[in-house]
Amino acid sequence: MKKIAMLIIGDEILCGKTADKNLQVLALKLSEKGYALSEVRIVPDEFEEIIPAINELRKKYFLIFTSGGIGPTHDDITSEAVAKAFNVELEINSEAKNILAEYYASLNLEFTEARLRMARIPKGASLIPNKISKAPGFKMENVCVLAGIPSIFVSMLESFLETLPEGTKIHSLSIESEAVSEGMIAMQMEKIQKKYLGKVAIGSYPKMLGSGKFALEITFRGANLELCENAKEEIKTLINSF
Amino acid sequence: MKKIAMLIIGDEILCGKTADKNLQVLALKLSEKGYALSEVRIVPDEFEEIIPAINELRKKYFLIFTSGGIGPTHDDITSEAVAKAFNVELEINSEAKNILAEYYASLNLEFTEARLRMARIPKGASLIPNKISKAPGFKMENVCVLAGIPSIFVSMLESFLETLPEGTKIHSLSIESEAVSEGMIAMQMEKIQKKYLGKVAIGSYPKMLGSGKFALEITFRGANLELCENAKEEIKTLINSF
Repeated sequence: MKKIAMLIIGDEILCGKTADKNLQVLALKLSEKGYALSEVRIVPDEFEEIIPAINELRKKYFLIFTSGGIGPTHDDITSEAVAKAFNVELEINSEAKNILAEYYASLNLEFTEARLRMARIPKGASLIPNKISKAPGFKMENVCVLAGIPSIFVSMLESFLETLPEGTKIHSLSIESEAVSEGMIAMQMEKIQKKYLGKVAIGSYPKMLGSGKFALEITFRGANLELCENAKEEIKTLINSF
Repeated sequence: MKKIAMLIIGDEILCGKTADKNLQVLALKLSEKGYALSEVRIVPDEFEEIIPAINELRKKYFLIFTSGGIGPTHDDITSEAVAKAFNVELEINSEAKNILAEYYASLNLEFTEARLRMARIPKGASLIPNKISKAPGFKMENVCVLAGIPSIFVSMLESFLETLPEGTKIHSLSIESEAVSEGMIAMQMEKIQKKYLGKVAIGSYPKMLGSGKFALEITFRGANLELCENAKEEIKTLINSF
Protein backbone atom coordinates (compact mmCIF):
# COMPACT_ATOMS: atom_id res chain seq x y z
CA MET A 1 0.00 0.00 0.00
CA LYS A 2 1.41 3.37 -1.01
CA LYS A 3 2.24 5.64 1.90
CA ILE A 4 1.44 9.32 2.00
CA ALA A 5 2.37 12.11 4.42
CA MET A 6 0.73 15.42 5.27
CA LEU A 7 2.49 18.64 6.23
CA ILE A 8 0.27 21.23 7.88
CA ILE A 9 1.83 24.69 7.78
CA GLY A 10 0.52 27.31 10.14
CA ASP A 11 1.23 29.21 13.34
CA GLU A 12 -2.53 29.43 13.93
CA ILE A 13 -2.76 25.66 14.51
CA LEU A 14 0.29 25.55 16.79
CA CYS A 15 -0.86 28.43 19.01
CA GLY A 16 -4.32 26.85 19.38
CA LYS A 17 -6.24 29.66 17.65
CA THR A 18 -7.55 27.32 14.95
CA ALA A 19 -8.40 23.62 15.09
CA ASP A 20 -7.19 21.81 11.98
CA LYS A 21 -10.05 20.33 9.99
CA ASN A 22 -8.13 19.05 6.97
CA LEU A 23 -6.27 16.09 8.44
CA GLN A 24 -9.29 13.87 9.03
CA VAL A 25 -10.77 14.71 5.61
CA LEU A 26 -7.50 13.78 3.92
CA ALA A 27 -7.19 10.58 5.98
CA LEU A 28 -10.70 9.43 5.05
CA LYS A 29 -10.44 10.33 1.36
CA LEU A 30 -7.07 8.58 1.02
CA SER A 31 -8.45 5.51 2.79
CA GLU A 32 -11.41 5.43 0.39
CA LYS A 33 -9.05 5.69 -2.56
CA GLY A 34 -6.81 2.90 -1.25
CA TYR A 35 -3.85 4.88 0.06
CA ALA A 36 -2.51 5.15 3.62
CA LEU A 37 -1.88 8.40 5.42
CA SER A 38 1.25 7.35 7.32
CA GLU A 39 2.61 10.49 8.95
CA VAL A 40 1.54 14.05 9.67
CA ARG A 41 3.70 16.99 10.69
CA ILE A 42 2.63 20.45 11.75
CA VAL A 43 5.21 23.22 11.50
CA PRO A 44 5.15 27.03 11.88
CA ASP A 45 5.31 29.60 9.03
CA GLU A 46 9.13 29.53 8.94
CA PHE A 47 11.41 28.54 6.06
CA GLU A 48 13.88 26.81 8.36
CA GLU A 49 11.13 24.46 9.57
CA ILE A 50 9.13 24.01 6.36
CA ILE A 51 11.99 23.29 3.93
CA PRO A 52 13.63 20.41 5.86
CA ALA A 53 10.20 18.90 6.58
CA ILE A 54 9.31 18.93 2.86
CA ASN A 55 12.65 17.42 1.91
CA GLU A 56 12.48 14.66 4.51
CA LEU A 57 8.91 13.71 3.76
CA ARG A 58 9.10 13.82 -0.04
CA LYS A 59 12.00 11.38 0.00
CA LYS A 60 10.30 8.99 2.40
CA TYR A 61 6.74 8.91 1.00
CA PHE A 62 4.98 8.27 -2.30
CA LEU A 63 3.17 11.61 -2.08
CA ILE A 64 2.96 14.48 0.38
CA PHE A 65 0.12 16.95 0.78
CA THR A 66 0.70 20.34 2.35
CA SER A 67 -2.05 22.59 3.67
CA GLY A 68 -1.84 26.30 4.34
CA GLY A 69 0.34 29.26 3.46
CA ILE A 70 -0.52 29.90 -0.20
CA GLY A 71 -2.41 33.18 0.14
CA PRO A 72 -1.09 36.66 -0.75
CA THR A 73 0.22 37.87 2.64
CA HIS A 74 3.68 38.01 4.24
CA ASP A 75 2.99 34.88 6.32
CA ASP A 76 2.13 32.81 3.21
CA ILE A 77 5.50 31.31 2.40
CA THR A 78 4.66 27.76 1.37
CA SER A 79 5.15 28.24 -2.40
CA GLU A 80 8.52 29.89 -1.88
CA ALA A 81 9.52 27.18 0.60
CA VAL A 82 8.65 24.45 -1.93
CA ALA A 83 10.68 26.24 -4.63
CA LYS A 84 13.61 26.43 -2.21
CA ALA A 85 13.23 22.78 -1.18
CA PHE A 86 13.46 21.74 -4.86
CA ASN A 87 16.03 24.43 -5.64
CA VAL A 88 13.98 25.82 -8.54
CA GLU A 89 12.73 29.33 -9.28
CA LEU A 90 9.43 30.66 -8.02
CA GLU A 91 7.99 32.30 -11.13
CA ILE A 92 4.76 33.92 -12.27
CA ASN A 93 2.90 31.02 -13.88
CA SER A 94 1.05 32.34 -16.93
CA GLU A 95 -1.81 29.84 -16.64
CA ALA A 96 -2.34 30.79 -12.99
CA LYS A 97 -2.08 34.49 -13.87
CA ASN A 98 -4.78 34.11 -16.55
CA ILE A 99 -7.11 32.26 -14.18
CA LEU A 100 -6.75 35.00 -11.57
CA ALA A 101 -7.03 37.88 -14.07
CA GLU A 102 -10.28 36.45 -15.40
CA TYR A 103 -11.63 35.81 -11.90
CA TYR A 104 -10.95 39.31 -10.56
CA ALA A 105 -12.30 40.87 -13.77
CA SER A 106 -15.51 38.89 -13.34
CA LEU A 107 -15.85 40.28 -9.80
CA ASN A 108 -14.92 43.82 -10.86
CA LEU A 109 -11.98 43.72 -8.48
CA GLU A 110 -8.53 45.13 -9.12
CA PHE A 111 -5.86 42.51 -9.92
CA THR A 112 -3.44 43.94 -7.35
CA GLU A 113 0.26 43.19 -6.94
CA ALA A 114 -0.65 41.17 -3.81
CA ARG A 115 -3.17 39.05 -5.72
CA LEU A 116 -0.58 38.44 -8.44
CA ARG A 117 1.56 36.77 -5.75
CA MET A 118 -0.86 33.87 -5.83
CA ALA A 119 0.26 33.16 -9.41
CA ARG A 120 3.83 32.52 -8.22
CA ILE A 121 4.38 28.79 -8.71
CA PRO A 122 7.66 26.83 -8.55
CA LYS A 123 9.09 26.21 -12.05
CA GLY A 124 8.08 22.78 -13.31
CA ALA A 125 4.97 22.40 -11.14
CA SER A 126 1.50 21.67 -12.55
CA LEU A 127 -1.58 23.47 -11.25
CA ILE A 128 -4.30 21.97 -9.05
CA PRO A 129 -7.60 23.78 -9.69
CA ASN A 130 -9.46 25.73 -6.99
CA LYS A 131 -13.16 25.83 -7.80
CA ILE A 132 -13.95 28.17 -4.92
CA SER A 133 -11.63 31.17 -4.98
CA LYS A 134 -9.66 30.26 -8.13
CA ALA A 135 -6.10 30.83 -6.83
CA PRO A 136 -4.68 27.39 -7.66
CA GLY A 137 -2.69 24.85 -5.67
CA PHE A 138 0.06 22.93 -7.43
CA LYS A 139 1.93 19.65 -7.66
CA MET A 140 5.72 19.77 -7.73
CA GLU A 141 7.01 16.22 -8.36
CA ASN A 142 5.41 14.27 -5.48
CA VAL A 143 4.48 17.31 -3.37
CA CYS A 144 0.86 18.52 -3.62
CA VAL A 145 0.39 22.02 -2.25
CA LEU A 146 -3.17 22.82 -1.14
CA ALA A 147 -4.85 25.75 0.60
CA GLY A 148 -5.52 25.75 4.35
CA ILE A 149 -9.13 27.00 4.30
CA PRO A 150 -11.11 23.75 4.71
CA SER A 151 -13.63 24.24 1.88
CA ILE A 152 -10.82 25.10 -0.55
CA PHE A 153 -8.59 22.29 0.74
CA VAL A 154 -11.32 19.73 0.05
CA SER A 155 -12.11 21.16 -3.36
CA MET A 156 -8.43 21.02 -4.42
CA LEU A 157 -8.03 17.56 -2.92
CA GLU A 158 -11.01 16.18 -4.82
CA SER A 159 -9.73 17.66 -8.09
CA PHE A 160 -6.36 16.05 -7.50
CA LEU A 161 -7.68 12.65 -6.39
CA GLU A 162 -9.61 12.31 -9.66
CA THR A 163 -6.22 12.10 -11.40
CA LEU A 164 -4.82 9.47 -9.00
CA PRO A 165 -5.27 5.78 -9.89
CA GLU A 166 -7.14 3.60 -7.38
CA GLY A 167 -4.83 2.13 -4.74
CA THR A 168 -5.31 -0.97 -2.58
CA LYS A 169 -8.78 -1.17 -1.06
CA ILE A 170 -8.57 -1.62 2.70
CA HIS A 171 -11.62 -3.03 4.46
CA SER A 172 -12.50 -1.82 7.91
CA LEU A 173 -14.85 -3.63 10.30
CA SER A 174 -15.59 -2.93 13.92
CA ILE A 175 -17.30 -4.21 17.07
CA GLU A 176 -18.38 -2.15 20.04
CA SER A 177 -18.96 -3.55 23.49
CA GLU A 178 -19.76 -2.19 26.91
CA ALA A 179 -19.60 -5.69 28.43
CA VAL A 180 -15.82 -6.10 28.42
CA SER A 181 -12.89 -3.80 29.04
CA GLU A 182 -9.37 -3.94 27.62
CA GLY A 183 -8.01 -5.26 30.91
CA MET A 184 -10.22 -8.35 30.61
CA ILE A 185 -9.43 -9.40 27.04
CA ALA A 186 -6.04 -7.89 26.16
CA MET A 187 -3.96 -11.06 26.53
CA GLN A 188 -6.30 -13.26 24.45
CA MET A 189 -6.79 -10.48 21.89
CA GLU A 190 -3.02 -10.26 21.48
CA LYS A 191 -2.91 -13.97 20.60
CA ILE A 192 -5.56 -13.42 17.94
CA GLN A 193 -3.66 -10.39 16.57
CA LYS A 194 -0.49 -12.52 16.34
CA LYS A 195 -2.36 -15.09 14.28
CA TYR A 196 -3.41 -12.41 11.76
CA LEU A 197 -0.18 -10.40 11.88
CA GLY A 198 0.53 -8.50 8.66
CA LYS A 199 -2.94 -9.43 7.35
CA VAL A 200 -5.45 -7.83 9.68
CA ALA A 201 -4.57 -4.93 11.98
CA ILE A 202 -6.65 -5.17 15.14
CA GLY A 203 -7.08 -1.84 16.93
CA SER A 204 -8.51 -1.46 20.42
CA TYR A 205 -10.06 1.88 21.42
CA PRO A 206 -11.69 2.52 24.78
CA LYS A 207 -13.83 5.63 24.87
CA MET A 208 -15.48 7.40 27.71
CA LEU A 209 -19.26 7.53 27.58
CA GLY A 210 -21.24 10.46 28.95
CA SER A 211 -22.09 8.30 31.96
CA GLY A 212 -18.41 8.12 32.99
CA LYS A 213 -18.33 4.44 31.94
CA PHE A 214 -16.11 3.15 29.16
CA ALA A 215 -17.11 1.40 25.95
CA LEU A 216 -14.63 -0.58 23.91
CA GLU A 217 -14.41 -0.40 20.13
CA ILE A 218 -12.31 -2.97 18.31
CA THR A 219 -11.46 -2.44 14.64
CA PHE A 220 -10.23 -4.84 11.96
CA ARG A 221 -8.43 -3.38 8.94
CA GLY A 222 -6.93 -5.26 6.03
CA ALA A 223 -6.98 -5.82 2.28
CA ASN A 224 -8.58 -9.28 2.60
CA LEU A 225 -12.21 -8.93 3.70
CA GLU A 226 -12.61 -12.62 4.59
CA LEU A 227 -9.64 -12.52 6.96
CA CYS A 228 -11.03 -9.32 8.58
CA GLU A 229 -14.35 -11.10 9.08
CA ASN A 230 -12.64 -14.17 10.54
CA ALA A 231 -10.65 -12.07 13.00
CA LYS A 232 -13.81 -10.22 13.97
CA GLU A 233 -15.63 -13.52 14.61
CA GLU A 234 -12.81 -14.72 16.86
CA ILE A 235 -12.94 -11.52 18.91
CA LYS A 236 -16.73 -11.73 19.09
CA THR A 237 -16.48 -15.25 20.49
CA LEU A 238 -13.90 -14.04 23.00
CA ILE A 239 -16.17 -11.18 24.14
CA ASN A 240 -19.16 -13.52 24.43
CA SER A 241 -17.17 -15.85 26.69
CA PHE A 242 -17.40 -13.25 29.50
CA MET B 1 10.49 31.31 24.72
CA LYS B 2 10.91 27.61 25.38
CA LYS B 3 9.81 25.39 22.52
CA ILE B 4 7.79 22.23 22.95
CA ALA B 5 6.76 19.46 20.54
CA MET B 6 3.88 17.01 20.54
CA LEU B 7 3.95 13.44 19.25
CA ILE B 8 0.53 11.91 18.65
CA ILE B 9 0.71 8.13 18.42
CA GLY B 10 -2.19 6.29 16.85
CA ASP B 11 -3.35 4.49 13.73
CA GLU B 12 -6.89 5.65 14.52
CA ILE B 13 -5.97 9.28 13.80
CA LEU B 14 -4.08 8.46 10.59
CA CYS B 15 -6.87 6.33 9.13
CA GLY B 16 -9.45 9.04 9.89
CA LYS B 17 -11.50 6.98 12.36
CA THR B 18 -10.87 9.44 15.18
CA ALA B 19 -10.35 13.20 15.11
CA ASP B 20 -7.59 14.27 17.46
CA LYS B 21 -8.86 16.52 20.23
CA ASN B 22 -5.69 16.85 22.29
CA LEU B 23 -3.54 19.06 20.07
CA GLN B 24 -5.58 22.23 20.44
CA VAL B 25 -5.97 21.74 24.20
CA LEU B 26 -2.21 21.34 24.58
CA ALA B 27 -1.55 24.36 22.34
CA LEU B 28 -3.86 26.61 24.36
CA LYS B 29 -2.67 25.43 27.77
CA LEU B 30 0.99 25.85 26.80
CA SER B 31 0.26 29.33 25.43
CA GLU B 32 -1.43 30.28 28.70
CA LYS B 33 1.56 29.02 30.64
CA GLY B 34 4.02 30.92 28.45
CA TYR B 35 5.44 28.11 26.32
CA ALA B 36 5.26 27.62 22.56
CA LEU B 37 4.04 24.49 20.84
CA SER B 38 6.45 24.49 17.91
CA GLU B 39 5.96 21.19 16.12
CA VAL B 40 3.53 18.29 16.06
CA ARG B 41 4.01 14.85 14.53
CA ILE B 42 1.50 12.07 14.16
CA VAL B 43 2.86 8.55 13.66
CA PRO B 44 1.34 5.04 13.58
CA ASP B 45 1.57 2.41 16.36
CA GLU B 46 4.93 1.11 15.10
CA PHE B 47 8.26 1.05 16.94
CA GLU B 48 10.21 1.95 13.82
CA GLU B 49 8.24 5.19 13.49
CA ILE B 50 7.79 6.10 17.18
CA ILE B 51 11.37 5.61 18.38
CA PRO B 52 13.13 7.85 15.82
CA ALA B 53 10.43 10.51 16.25
CA ILE B 54 10.95 10.55 20.04
CA ASN B 55 14.70 10.72 19.65
CA GLU B 56 14.62 13.53 17.10
CA LEU B 57 12.12 15.63 18.99
CA ARG B 58 13.57 15.21 22.49
CA LYS B 59 16.94 16.46 21.27
CA LYS B 60 15.46 19.45 19.46
CA TYR B 61 12.90 20.68 22.01
CA PHE B 62 12.74 21.69 25.67
CA LEU B 63 9.91 19.22 26.30
CA ILE B 64 7.87 16.77 24.27
CA PHE B 65 4.39 15.50 25.05
CA THR B 66 3.16 12.22 23.60
CA SER B 67 -0.48 11.18 23.47
CA GLY B 68 -1.84 7.69 23.03
CA GLY B 69 -0.68 4.10 23.28
CA ILE B 70 -0.36 3.57 27.05
CA GLY B 71 -3.27 1.19 27.61
CA PRO B 72 -3.04 -2.59 28.22
CA THR B 73 -3.52 -3.96 24.67
CA HIS B 74 -1.12 -5.20 21.98
CA ASP B 75 -1.35 -1.89 20.07
CA ASP B 76 -0.28 0.13 23.13
CA ILE B 77 3.45 0.30 22.59
CA THR B 78 4.34 3.84 23.63
CA SER B 79 5.90 2.98 27.01
CA GLU B 80 8.06 0.29 25.46
CA ALA B 81 9.02 2.63 22.62
CA VAL B 82 10.11 5.32 25.09
CA ALA B 83 12.18 2.76 27.04
CA LYS B 84 13.83 1.71 23.75
CA ALA B 85 14.42 5.31 22.68
CA PHE B 86 16.26 5.96 25.97
CA ASN B 87 17.82 2.50 25.99
CA VAL B 88 16.56 1.74 29.49
CA GLU B 89 14.52 -1.15 30.86
CA LEU B 90 10.75 -1.16 30.93
CA GLU B 91 10.00 -2.39 34.45
CA ILE B 92 7.04 -2.84 36.76
CA ASN B 93 7.00 0.41 38.72
CA SER B 94 6.00 -0.37 42.30
CA GLU B 95 4.29 2.99 42.86
CA ALA B 96 2.21 2.53 39.69
CA LYS B 97 1.44 -1.08 40.68
CA ASN B 98 0.18 0.04 44.10
CA ILE B 99 -2.02 2.75 42.58
CA LEU B 100 -3.58 0.24 40.19
CA ALA B 101 -3.95 -2.53 42.81
CA GLU B 102 -5.81 -0.14 45.10
CA TYR B 103 -7.99 1.16 42.26
CA TYR B 104 -9.09 -2.26 41.00
CA ALA B 105 -9.69 -3.47 44.57
CA SER B 106 -11.93 -0.45 45.18
CA LEU B 107 -13.95 -1.41 42.08
CA ASN B 108 -14.01 -5.11 42.97
CA LEU B 109 -12.25 -5.89 39.71
CA GLU B 110 -9.54 -8.47 39.20
CA PHE B 111 -6.02 -7.00 38.83
CA THR B 112 -5.33 -9.01 35.67
CA GLU B 113 -2.00 -9.59 33.94
CA ALA B 114 -3.17 -7.17 31.22
CA ARG B 115 -3.95 -4.43 33.76
CA LEU B 116 -0.53 -4.94 35.35
CA ARG B 117 0.96 -3.96 31.98
CA MET B 118 -0.10 -0.39 32.69
CA ALA B 119 2.37 -0.36 35.61
CA ARG B 120 5.28 -0.93 33.20
CA ILE B 121 7.26 2.33 33.22
CA PRO B 122 10.73 3.02 31.80
CA LYS B 123 13.43 2.85 34.53
CA GLY B 124 14.19 6.34 35.83
CA ALA B 125 10.87 7.93 34.87
CA SER B 126 8.60 9.74 37.33
CA LEU B 127 4.84 9.22 37.31
CA ILE B 128 2.22 11.71 36.10
CA PRO B 129 -1.05 11.14 37.98
CA ASN B 130 -4.29 10.15 36.25
CA LYS B 131 -7.25 11.29 38.31
CA ILE B 132 -9.78 9.59 36.05
CA SER B 133 -8.80 5.97 35.48
CA LYS B 134 -5.67 5.91 37.69
CA ALA B 135 -3.22 4.22 35.24
CA PRO B 136 -0.49 6.88 35.31
CA GLY B 137 1.43 8.67 32.59
CA PHE B 138 5.11 9.39 33.13
CA LYS B 139 7.96 11.78 32.48
CA MET B 140 11.24 10.33 31.24
CA GLU B 141 13.82 13.14 31.13
CA ASN B 142 12.11 15.72 28.88
CA VAL B 143 9.49 13.34 27.43
CA CYS B 144 6.02 13.48 29.00
CA VAL B 145 3.90 10.46 28.12
CA LEU B 146 0.15 11.04 28.39
CA ALA B 147 -2.97 9.02 27.54
CA GLY B 148 -4.86 9.50 24.27
CA ILE B 149 -8.41 9.59 25.64
CA PRO B 150 -9.13 13.35 25.76
CA SER B 151 -10.50 13.59 29.31
CA ILE B 152 -7.52 11.64 30.66
CA PHE B 153 -5.04 13.56 28.49
CA VAL B 154 -6.27 16.87 29.93
CA SER B 155 -6.27 15.59 33.48
CA MET B 156 -2.66 14.35 33.17
CA LEU B 157 -1.60 17.54 31.40
CA GLU B 158 -3.05 19.75 34.13
CA SER B 159 -1.31 17.71 36.84
CA PHE B 160 1.98 18.07 35.01
CA LEU B 161 1.63 21.78 34.21
CA GLU B 162 1.22 22.56 37.91
CA THR B 163 4.84 21.45 38.34
CA LEU B 164 6.15 23.57 35.45
CA PRO B 165 7.36 27.12 36.18
CA GLU B 166 5.64 29.98 34.34
CA GLY B 167 7.24 30.73 30.97
CA THR B 168 7.14 33.91 28.91
CA LYS B 169 3.66 35.41 28.70
CA ILE B 170 2.67 36.01 25.07
CA HIS B 171 -0.09 38.51 24.39
CA SER B 172 -2.49 37.91 21.58
CA LEU B 173 -4.73 40.58 20.05
CA SER B 174 -6.89 40.42 16.96
CA ILE B 175 -9.03 42.43 14.54
CA GLU B 176 -11.73 41.06 12.28
CA SER B 177 -12.96 42.81 9.16
CA GLU B 178 -15.32 42.04 6.34
CA ALA B 179 -14.48 45.35 4.63
CA VAL B 180 -11.04 44.40 3.29
CA SER B 181 -9.53 41.27 1.81
CA GLU B 182 -5.93 40.08 1.91
CA GLY B 183 -5.43 41.06 -1.73
CA MET B 184 -6.17 44.71 -0.86
CA ILE B 185 -3.86 45.17 2.13
CA ALA B 186 -1.15 42.51 1.86
CA MET B 187 1.65 44.78 0.59
CA GLN B 188 1.13 47.51 3.20
CA MET B 189 0.62 44.92 5.95
CA GLU B 190 3.95 43.37 5.03
CA LYS B 191 5.67 46.73 5.58
CA ILE B 192 4.09 46.97 9.03
CA GLN B 193 5.16 43.39 9.84
CA LYS B 194 8.75 44.25 8.81
CA LYS B 195 8.74 47.18 11.23
CA TYR B 196 7.77 44.88 14.11
CA LEU B 197 9.83 41.86 13.00
CA GLY B 198 10.92 39.65 15.89
CA LYS B 199 8.67 41.61 18.27
CA VAL B 200 5.10 41.18 17.07
CA ALA B 201 4.06 38.31 14.80
CA ILE B 202 1.23 39.47 12.56
CA GLY B 203 -0.94 36.62 11.24
CA SER B 204 -3.53 36.99 8.51
CA TYR B 205 -6.40 34.48 8.34
CA PRO B 206 -9.21 34.68 5.82
CA LYS B 207 -12.19 32.55 6.70
CA MET B 208 -15.23 31.64 4.72
CA LEU B 209 -18.53 32.82 6.16
CA GLY B 210 -21.76 30.89 5.76
CA SER B 211 -22.78 33.38 3.08
CA GLY B 212 -19.86 32.34 0.85
CA LYS B 213 -18.16 35.68 1.57
CA PHE B 214 -14.82 35.94 3.33
CA ALA B 215 -13.95 37.72 6.55
CA LEU B 216 -10.38 38.55 7.45
CA GLU B 217 -8.93 38.05 10.92
CA ILE B 218 -5.57 39.60 11.71
CA THR B 219 -3.73 38.57 14.87
CA PHE B 220 -0.88 40.21 16.81
CA ARG B 221 1.22 38.03 19.08
CA GLY B 222 4.21 39.05 21.16
CA ALA B 223 5.67 39.36 24.64
CA ASN B 224 5.39 43.18 24.68
CA LEU B 225 1.73 44.19 24.94
CA GLU B 226 2.35 47.83 24.01
CA LEU B 227 4.05 46.85 20.76
CA CYS B 228 1.18 44.46 19.94
CA GLU B 229 -1.26 47.31 20.52
CA ASN B 230 0.79 49.67 18.36
CA ALA B 231 0.92 47.18 15.50
CA LYS B 232 -2.81 46.62 15.82
CA GLU B 233 -3.46 50.37 15.64
CA GLU B 234 -1.38 50.65 12.47
CA ILE B 235 -3.33 47.84 10.81
CA LYS B 236 -6.61 49.36 11.96
CA THR B 237 -5.65 52.66 10.33
CA LEU B 238 -4.72 50.77 7.16
CA ILE B 239 -8.09 48.99 7.07
CA ASN B 240 -9.97 52.23 7.70
CA SER B 241 -8.22 53.86 4.74
CA PHE B 242 -10.32 51.71 2.37
